[in-house]
Amino acid sequence: MGWRFDEDTAVDDHGNGRFGTQITGAWNIDANPNGGYLAAVAISAMQQVGPYTDPLTVTVHFLRPATSGGSAEITAEAVRTGRRVSTVRATLAQEGVGRLEVIGSFGQLGETASPTLTVSPPSLPPPAECLPRSAEEQGVVLRLEDHVETRMSADASDHRAETTGWIRFRDGRPPDLLALALFVDAFPPSIFRLLGRVGWVPTIELTVHFRALPVPGWVRGRFLTDDLTDGRMIETGELWDADGTLVARSRQLALLVPLD
Amino acid sequence: MGWRFDEDTAVDDHGNGRFGTQITGAWNIDANPNGGYLAAVAISAMQQVGPYTDPLTVTVHFLRPATSGGSAEITAEAVRTGRRVSTVRATLAQEGVGRLEVIGSFGQLGETASPTLTVSPPSLPPPAECLPRSAEEQGVVLRLEDHVETRMSADASDHRAETTGWIRFRDGRPPDLLALALFVDAFPPSIFRLLGRVGWVPTIELTVHFRALPVPGWVRGRFLTDDLTDGRMIETGELWDADGTLVARSRQLALLVPLD
Repeated sequence: MGWRFDEDTAVDDHGNGRFGTQITGAWNIDANPNGGYLAAVAISAMQQVGPYTDPLTVTVHFLRPATSGGSAEITAEAVRTGRRVSTVRATLAQEGVGRLEVIGSFGQLGETASPTLTVSPPSLPPPAECLPRSAEEQGVVLRLEDHVETRMSADASDHRAETTGWIRFRDGRPPDLLALALFVDAFPPSIFRLLGRVGWVPTIELTVHFRALPVPGWVRGRFLTDDLTDGRMIETGELWDADGTLVARSRQLALLVPLD
Repeated sequence: MGWRFDEDTAVDDHGNGRFGTQITGAWNIDANPNGGYLAAVAISAMQQVGPYTDPLTVTVHFLRPATSGGSAEITAEAVRTGRRVSTVRATLAQEGVGRLEVIGSFGQLGETASPTLTVSPPSLPPPAECLPRSAEEQGVVLRLEDHVETRMSADASDHRAETTGWIRFRDGRPPDLLALALFVDAFPPSIFRLLGRVGWVPTIELTVHFRALPVPGWVRGRFLTDDLTDGRMIETGELWDADGTLVARSRQLALLVPLD
């Protein structure tokens, strides 16, 4: 028996850049499959297009909510394959209707030595001294939390829409790049820290930069919403692995009020 | 006679989502058309797909360098049109070979009142006390600087890869959203401040979030590279208009050493 996340992000190759999978309800937040989980499913298909399998940068536009419990078809196509980077486009559809439109660059992380700059992780209380996500979002059915353990630090200032904490799979699956696509979207929206739980915060677009392969252990996250206008906000996030290495960065445009 | 930037980003509608234009050398840096100019050309076509014309978030993957002096064809397609947001995909090709792959969401800025959070502009010396971009990049043929006036602040710390300054069109054209796509990519790469002029820094992917329509006048910019590993760096930027309103944010993944 494999890990649950691997089972739920696996895709069947139907040939000609077409892949099939099932969208499970295991990663739902209320009735909606988590966007990071859907992104991971799309990336899983894009990895099969090859020749490179490490995502470097992936942008997802969420066109419509996906339906959990239904099948999905991913079409993926390399628009360019270079000597070190390939660019892949993908669409995830259910019942013939597009749910995610995705573009990403793939390559190999850690292949080149270069001068290094990085962002240091925040100092946080250990996971045992932090609170589960459900404590912050009472009344929300977090099926995601059955599979992902999220421990939120209470330390952040009340005057900033900033969330920090820890995350890992409950079944002991070690983190990898695909997991980071889930983890950047698995903390409660940081705007809740400032405005309270203002309802569903649908993502229009999520871009993830993958910076390094994470080592096993807890992943540390920091998410900040510093820019909200027109009911549209930008949340910027970082993830670090158990060694304190910056492993992923994210930025998403989300709606404070569902408009569509 | 119109403004040069409008002439050079105009596209002819060939029907069925196909648009034609000329890529001029007026916005070159050495032999290469500036990536922000190419992004603006693509967005110009995407705006014609409608029904919404304000870009909200646009991601560009630069597949291959474009050729100045040649014609280009843009194909653009709405993958979803909602009540307030449309998602548009585009490819910019020359001689049948893709140069840019683009996805963006379009809507209407300023339509909704909401709580507001924003990022304040840095305090900078006035443009007259700043230096032209060419002073920072001696030996580079900056045809871009014939049309865009960029004034760099010398204030930034030597220990950070951070660039701040001012930008505007030389011919007096007021800034708009399309101009912001150019301006986020028109300052010298901020990594030069830390490592010196290390050569061409090709962009793999650029994502721009458009936050507000700029008022006429100088646009202020700040760009920071805080994350470099494997020879791949992330530069994060912000632009503010003459009133100090945050008008655009950018993030790009670029190569320190050309790999491809």
